[in-house]
Amino acid sequence: MSAANGNKRKRKSRTVPAAKIGLPPGTLVHVGEIKTEQPLISTLAFDQHGIEEQRFDSFAAVSEYWPGHQRLWLNVHGLQDPAILAAIGQRYNLHPLVLEDILNTHQRPKIDDYGDYLFFVARVFEYDPDSRILISDQISIVLGKDFVLSFQERRSGLFEPIRERLRSDHAPLRRNGVDYLVHALLDAVVDRYFVVLDQLGNTAEDLEDAAIGSPTPDLLKTINLVKHDCQLIRRAIWPLRDVLNGLIRDDSAFFTADSKLYLRDIADHTIHVIETLDTVRDLLSDLMDIYLSSVSNRLNLQVRILTVLTTIFLPATLIAGIFGMNFEHMPIIGRSGGFYLALGMMAVIALGMAVIFWRRNWLKA
Amino acid sequence: MSAANGNKRKRKSRTVPAAKIGLPPGTLVHVGEIKTEQPLISTLAFDQHGIEEQRFDSFAAVSEYWPGHQRLWLNVHGLQDPAILAAIGQRYNLHPLVLEDILNTHQRPKIDDYGDYLFFVARVFEYDPDSRILISDQISIVLGKDFVLSFQERRSGLFEPIRERLRSDHAPLRRNGVDYLVHALLDAVVDRYFVVLDQLGNTAEDLEDAAIGSPTPDLLKTINLVKHDCQLIRRAIWPLRDVLNGLIRDDSAFFTADSKLYLRDIADHTIHVIETLDTVRDLLSDLMDIYLSSVSNRLNLQVRILTVLTTIFLPATLIAGIFGMNFEHMPIIGRSGGFYLALGMMAVIALGMAVIFWRRNWLKA
Amino acid sequence: MSAANGNKRKRKSRTVPAAKIGLPPGTLVHVGEIKTEQPLISTLAFDQHGIEEQRFDSFAAVSEYWPGHQRLWLNVHGLQDPAILAAIGQRYNLHPLVLEDILNTHQRPKIDDYGDYLFFVARVFEYDPDSRILISDQISIVLGKDFVLSFQERRSGLFEPIRERLRSDHAPLRRNGVDYLVHALLDAVVDRYFVVLDQLGNTAEDLEDAAIGSPTPDLLKTINLVKHDCQLIRRAIWPLRDVLNGLIRDDSAFFTADSKLYLRDIADHTIHVIETLDTVRDLLSDLMDIYLSSVSNRLNLQVRILTVLTTIFLPATLIAGIFGMNFEHMPIIGRSGGFYLALGMMAVIALGMAVIFWRRNWLKA
Amino acid sequence: MSAANGNKRKRKSRTVPAAKIGLPPGTLVHVGEIKTEQPLISTLAFDQHGIEEQRFDSFAAVSEYWPGHQRLWLNVHGLQDPAILAAIGQRYNLHPLVLEDILNTHQRPKIDDYGDYLFFVARVFEYDPDSRILISDQISIVLGKDFVLSFQERRSGLFEPIRERLRSDHAPLRRNGVDYLVHALLDAVVDRYFVVLDQLGNTAEDLEDAAIGSPTPDLLKTINLVKHDCQLIRRAIWPLRDVLNGLIRDDSAFFTADSKLYLRDIADHTIHVIETLDTVRDLLSDLMDIYLSSVSNRLNLQVRILTVLTTIFLPATLIAGIFGMNFEHMPIIGRSGGFYLALGMMAVIALGMAVIFWRRNWLKA
Amino acid sequence: MSAANGNKRKRKSRTVPAAKIGLPPGTLVHVGEIKTEQPLISTLAFDQHGIEEQRFDSFAAVSEYWPGHQRLWLNVHGLQDPAILAAIGQRYNLHPLVLEDILNTHQRPKIDDYGDYLFFVARVFEYDPDSRILISDQISIVLGKDFVLSFQERRSGLFEPIRERLRSDHAPLRRNGVDYLVHALLDAVVDRYFVVLDQLGNTAEDLEDAAIGSPTPDLLKTINLVKHDCQLIRRAIWPLRDVLNGLIRDDSAFFTADSKLYLRDIADHTIHVIETLDTVRDLLSDLMDIYLSSVSNRLNLQVRILTVLTTIFLPATLIAGIFGMNFEHMPIIGRSGGFYLALGMMAVIALGMAVIFWRRNWLKA
Ligand SMILES: [Mg+2]
Ligand SMILES: [Mg+2]
Ligand SMILES: [Mg+2]
Ligand SMILES: [Mg+2]
Ligand SMILES: [Mg+2]
Ligand SMILES: [Mg+2]
Ligand SMILES: [Mg+2]
Ligand SMILES: [Mg+2]
Ligand SMILES: [Mg+2]
Ligand SMILES: [Mg+2]
Ligand SMILES: [Mg+2]
Ligand SMILES: [Mg+2]
Ligand SMILES: [Mg+2]
Ligand SMILES: [Mg+2]
Ligand SMILES: [Mg+2]
Ligand SMILES: [Mg+2]
Ligand SMILES: [Mg+2]
Ligand SMILES: [Mg+2]
Ligand SMILES: [Mg+2]
Ligand SMILES: [Mg+2]
Ligand SMILES: [Mg+2]
Ligand SMILES: [Mg+2]
Ligand SMILES: [Mg+2]
Ligand SMILES: [Mg+2]
Ligand SMILES: [Mg+2]
Ligand SMILES: [Mg+2]
Ligand SMILES: [Mg+2]
Ligand SMILES: [Mg+2]
Ligand SMILES: [Mg+2]
Ligand SMILES: [Mg+2]
Ligand SMILES: [Mg+2]
Repeated sequence: MSAANGNKRKRKSRTVPAAKIGLPPGTLVHVGEIKTEQPLISTLAFDQHGIEEQRFDSFAAVSEYWPGHQRLWLNVHGLQDPAILAAIGQRYNLHPLVLEDILNTHQRPKIDDYGDYLFFVARVFEYDPDSRILISDQISIVLGKDFVLSFQERRSGLFEPIRERLRSDHAPLRRNGVDYLVHALLDAVVDRYFVVLDQLGNTAEDLEDAAIGSPTPDLLKTINLVKHDCQLIRRAIWPLRDVLNGLIRDDSAFFTADSKLYLRDIADHTIHVIETLDTVRDLLSDLMDIYLSSVSNRLNLQVRILTVLTTIFLPATLIAGIFGMNFEHMPIIGRSGGFYLALGMMAVIALGMAVIFWRRNWLKA
Repeated sequence: MSAANGNKRKRKSRTVPAAKIGLPPGTLVHVGEIKTEQPLISTLAFDQHGIEEQRFDSFAAVSEYWPGHQRLWLNVHGLQDPAILAAIGQRYNLHPLVLEDILNTHQRPKIDDYGDYLFFVARVFEYDPDSRILISDQISIVLGKDFVLSFQERRSGLFEPIRERLRSDHAPLRRNGVDYLVHALLDAVVDRYFVVLDQLGNTAEDLEDAAIGSPTPDLLKTINLVKHDCQLIRRAIWPLRDVLNGLIRDDSAFFTADSKLYLRDIADHTIHVIETLDTVRDLLSDLMDIYLSSVSNRLNLQVRILTVLTTIFLPATLIAGIFGMNFEHMPIIGRSGGFYLALGMMAVIALGMAVIFWRRNWLKA
Repeated sequence: MSAANGNKRKRKSRTVPAAKIGLPPGTLVHVGEIKTEQPLISTLAFDQHGIEEQRFDSFAAVSEYWPGHQRLWLNVHGLQDPAILAAIGQRYNLHPLVLEDILNTHQRPKIDDYGDYLFFVARVFEYDPDSRILISDQISIVLGKDFVLSFQERRSGLFEPIRERLRSDHAPLRRNGVDYLVHALLDAVVDRYFVVLDQLGNTAEDLEDAAIGSPTPDLLKTINLVKHDCQLIRRAIWPLRDVLNGLIRDDSAFFTADSKLYLRDIADHTIHVIETLDTVRDLLSDLMDIYLSSVSNRLNLQVRILTVLTTIFLPATLIAGIFGMNFEHMPIIGRSGGFYLALGMMAVIALGMAVIFWRRNWLKA
Repeated sequence: MSAANGNKRKRKSRTVPAAKIGLPPGTLVHVGEIKTEQPLISTLAFDQHGIEEQRFDSFAAVSEYWPGHQRLWLNVHGLQDPAILAAIGQRYNLHPLVLEDILNTHQRPKIDDYGDYLFFVARVFEYDPDSRILISDQISIVLGKDFVLSFQERRSGLFEPIRERLRSDHAPLRRNGVDYLVHALLDAVVDRYFVVLDQLGNTAEDLEDAAIGSPTPDLLKTINLVKHDCQLIRRAIWPLRDVLNGLIRDDSAFFTADSKLYLRDIADHTIHVIETLDTVRDLLSDLMDIYLSSVSNRLNLQVRILTVLTTIFLPATLIAGIFGMNFEHMPIIGRSGGFYLALGMMAVIALGMAVIFWRRNWLKA
Repeated sequence: MSAANGNKRKRKSRTVPAAKIGLPPGTLVHVGEIKTEQPLISTLAFDQHGIEEQRFDSFAAVSEYWPGHQRLWLNVHGLQDPAILAAIGQRYNLHPLVLEDILNTHQRPKIDDYGDYLFFVARVFEYDPDSRILISDQISIVLGKDFVLSFQERRSGLFEPIRERLRSDHAPLRRNGVDYLVHALLDAVVDRYFVVLDQLGNTAEDLEDAAIGSPTPDLLKTINLVKHDCQLIRRAIWPLRDVLNGLIRDDSAFFTADSKLYLRDIADHTIHVIETLDTVRDLLSDLMDIYLSSVSNRLNLQVRILTVLTTIFLPATLIAGIFGMNFEHMPIIGRSGGFYLALGMMAVIALGMAVIFWRRNWLKA
């Protein structure tokens, strides 16, 4: 395990959208750092009778396209071209603040009711356990009476299973309204959290082992970074929960009573995610104390070894001193094997002490 | 006491029901790890006039069985066969999300009102103080007008005393409605918490003794694991309390005014459980500091002993050095017993110092 | 001060009423540990015209007794005989859950409105500063239109001054209704808290002195036990405050507007008690850190003394070594007083160093 | 700075009004410790046409005095004579609980509405930065339709500027009702908090310097005492804020809409005071950790010096040992300046090491 | 990086407006410390048809100026002349408490509704990362039906981009009411927070590096000062959020429904700022523990080096002692190269040990 990997990474949450400061609200400027090479617009029109899928490179093409089915799901990957957003905004009559929020991908989850449509923001994460890099992406959703618009910076494959389910003939997704589709999208987002939390949990346990077993200075920054990642996820989930609870309680005409049952199910999952996250966080918050005392302890163990070595030498040095005294009448001194007898005494005492300390585990670092 | 046992165990709360990710809601997949060998369906029909008990291996048999009494309690042990759930769902007209929650046994306690019936989830625990393993099981309850359905993964014997009381002729349980039976089930669940908390409390006190008396590195992970178990129980009880308080305040037609008095009694117990749990948690949260400083203290005590030994040797070594000087005119040197006199001086001083340090307790680790 | 006394004591809050687990609600089982030798029932009937006091050993005698005054206060000391409770319950038409709560003396303070009567629970404490034992007792009160029933496990003398006031001819207690009497009982309970908190506060300051001045391993457990006692008291007072606030705000027909003013006065005292308790708790929560660092510091001071001793011996040992060298031409060596000159040099340097260290306080543990 | 001053002082918040325990409510007993030598009653009658000031030693004189102006402010300094309180209570028809609260000067701030008048309690502080003694006094205010009564234990000069303003001909205080006067009194109380907090803040910074620079054991208790003082002030201000907010929101007939604007201004100041207090408290709560590690660090620095000294002696001792060996053929031994050469070697090496350690700052404690 | 810079600075939040204590409310006294050399009044009148800009040195000139456009924005830089404020107050009929709050620039953000106008306070910050000085300025805004008044102590250039946008012909700012202008001012304030937080975040990461890499005693106070600055900013933003939320929910006639959408957008940003601030604060709150243990660790590493040196000398000293013994029959002693053989033995053993310790990194501080 290389605990040092993590601390090369920069903290991300403080990214200030500097390009936006001082600009009037509603100005469409792309602030995201990571781009999909080419923006991709895909539409999926559906109702009980069938579905129709299309992909477009520009919005001009979309404008001329009229699908033969009642309900439409339009998804955009890659937000670097504000012109596309502006065109979609015009066609669906979106407020400039909505477009700005879609482009400014550092939003926290929220729901804004604009009367004709609801505007949602959620965040989705990907975690690479090896490099310990957490990628955060914003998913913006607009829910109208018979359309759903979704916007993402990167292609995560998150909604692919939903497309698959729509393609199936007997799918409840196809029979139900777009509110049920929105439920499916949010469900996919929350399900993804479980995967990320599992990886973060494993990372935290690895860090616990490292903190107890092999504490290195790098570990301290790594612990702080993983704590920071937990905090980022927590800040994405808490407001999501508020959003869901609000939807379930309020009389929003966008969701049927049955769809609200499904939203309640997602809200349950969201609380479960928060509790799982808290477990990871509890562990991490103790880690620094463990690390700090582990480092201090190892050092003290090493000093103990050195002190034991010093102690073992003491009697031998004293014996040498004793036989180095200049008394005229001294025993053994005159014997032929006296020198070796003295050395033997030294060795026996030193060895005896070594054995005692060894048995007491005082020579173990 | 073997403090090391606990840390072989894996943390459980992060178990992600991976099999469920991306699936449409309401898909019945069994996610539990521990199975009763054979699912068991038992029914208990009762009213003032008598009771009738039956056991079934499949739901097909249940479908053909019509009990001769007014109220029915159907209990299922072992959830590995989704088909049974599906059949029960069809017969009692349960919502797919209810069935999914019953099978997905990682729910937190909650209550959902589906109009025709209430759906409860509670959690029950078993704790093995020796292996320090906490087993958590989900109990799902459906309360209809004249039936109660209960679902568990494992046979815990928790409801056996209730069955016994139902069998008694004059039992209030038999005279009252199914709401009173549900109260009895919840009461049994909460009473079980007291047992588990008593065991956890004893464990915490054992850990306190170990942290002060014989701190070993394993203890750190054990403390964290027991803290984690406390957290798991806390997360099972807090929402239960909300559920009970909600029932007492709201006008749910499922509970009579008198039954609500009994629910209030359970709510009292639940708060008592939470307070008892907090006592254990307070103790545990100080334990890590105690452990860390205890480890550090023991090491320092050992270094003190070694330093005392060094100090005891100092005068003897100096005396040997003094009589090793090459002055032409030195006292004692020429005397016949001079050598032994010097050794005696060394011994007396060393012994004197040893006695002083011994009395000051500086030789005690 | 003997800090060690406290840790012989067992933590009490985890006492599980094991005898009650699995029993149907309303089963009357005595769970208290400490009993008054003989249950004592005392009645005090009163109105403007006079009072009448009686004492009974069994409830049979009470049943036949009809007091000649309008209002009745019945008090029971000692709850080991469930039969007495059952009889009282029958006469005053009390709900089985009320009787159960009176017998199960581990209730937290609460108030339950049963329509015809109010049922209160409060807790009262006694603290022995020498043995550091905190005794907790439950006081259950039933307030009807013209009667008050009070139940306690032990005779604490808490209500004796109230009896005295009732005996006085012009006492407002006698002129007012039973609601005013209930206020007096609660006032006596809250006044008692101040006494206990004063003792706990003194104990905490003793522990602070001990932690700074003479830290012993026992102190750690004592600190934890006193913290635990604070927590127990806190848990008795917080819900009491909620109860009082509820009574003041709601339109309970049991209390007159003027009696509510008096309840508000008790509520003020309750908040004062909580603040005083928090003062004690703040002090205690820092104590462990102080203790741990105090222990570590004392050890380090001792190691410093030993290291100073080693350092003082260094020059003497070097001088001995120098005059032990075998150079053919060495100064002083041949002088008659050379040996003593060398010893003098050793002594002067060692003494000089000792003085320096002494002045710097490095020889003080 | 003498950090030791503070810890002679006793903690004050636990003063139990022992004399009051068990007494019926409304019994007038003086519990304050600090008395003004002679109680002083001063009246100030005023309206647009003028003011009239009087001072009295007993309430008998007040009873016979009828001021010629519409509005009256009666202030009492010194509460040791319950008879005065009783007389005032009778004249202004005050509830016994009000009189009791005025005499029991350990009240927390609160407001009680008695219909005909409002009863306020606030607390005022004085801090002596040298002795680090915080004096706390209760200010009780009764606001009627056209009178204000104020009660204090000690003469603090707090209301002198208000008297001055009343004496001025064109003062808004004289033109407005007594509600505006009450606002002025509360404003004076809150303004005083800023002075005390500035002094506490300076004390906290002195303690921070002492903790880093010259940590002594006394400091620990001083830090705890100053923390305790902060807590006392906090407990006086928080409820005051609630009181003010309550007045601003509710429809109390005692305050005009314009007076409420002025109360809102005081509420702003109160929040500012709380935030300033939190700044001081944040600093104090880190101080103990700083102190503890500062003490530990200083000790370790001293041990490092001693260890450096030991290390510096090592080569010299070895050289002496080498030239003390008894080889028959040894270099330098026979030379005339050999002895001094050896001493020189010792000195050069020791000095060289000393220089190295000096440059690394390892000889600095 | 010079970590020491920060601690020359004084904490600012405790500045008591001493000049104000005891004065009647509404007295206009300037309490700010930093003044713009000359107060500057600038007006900007605008509507769809055009704009008109003027600058004045005194308010006398303003009084005679009647702009030819419908809406007016009057901004004042420099508040040292209370006469200007008094004149503005008279012309726009402002309450004395408003004028007082404008001059007393230590207000926390708030909004007061005076019926004819709204009075806002916000705070704006500037941070110098080199000197680590945080400058805080109050921005007071009065919003009437067709005018906006803004007041600041210092010229920050914060509103310059808004003036630029007003000068543009097609600006929405010019077409919309003054409520939209107020939104633009608040937006500029909140945007500035992002810049300051980015700088504080960088400072915190520098401090983290310094705490781990080169902990110096100055760092401790610097960490506390930066924590304090975070707290100051937090106290400016939290109440701002409450103000915005209040405006969005309430039916204030000053804002159109569309302007409220824009306020909601600012509220979103405010929450984002708080979360970013919490990230910085989380990091800072761990820093002190890291610093303290880092200092302790470095010292221990140095003591380890010294102990290793001592240990390396042990065998050499013993060998010298052995060959200094006075046995009559000793090996090697008589050999011609014996002395060098002994020295070689010493060197080999010392070098061997040095290599072992080097490889174990025990010689690295
Ligand atoms: Mg964020
Ligand atoms: Mg974050
Ligand atoms: Mg969890
Ligand atoms: Mg969990
Ligand atoms: Mg946990
Ligand atoms: Mg920490
Ligand atoms: Mg620590
Ligand atoms: Mg969980
Ligand atoms: Mg958990
Ligand atoms: Mg408890
Ligand atoms: Mg407790
Ligand atoms: Mg900790
Ligand atoms: Mg307890
Ligand atoms: Mg309890
Ligand atoms: Mg408190
Ligand atoms: Mg207090
Ligand atoms: Mg305190
Ligand atoms: Mg602690
Ligand atoms: Mg500590
Ligand atoms: Mg207090
Ligand atoms: Mg206090
Ligand atoms: Mg405060
Ligand atoms: Mg603060
Ligand atoms: Mg602390
Ligand atoms: Mg402040
Ligand atoms: Mg402030
Ligand atoms: Mg601050
Ligand atoms: Mg953030
Ligand atoms: Mg963060
Ligand atoms: Mg800390
Ligand atoms: Mg520490």
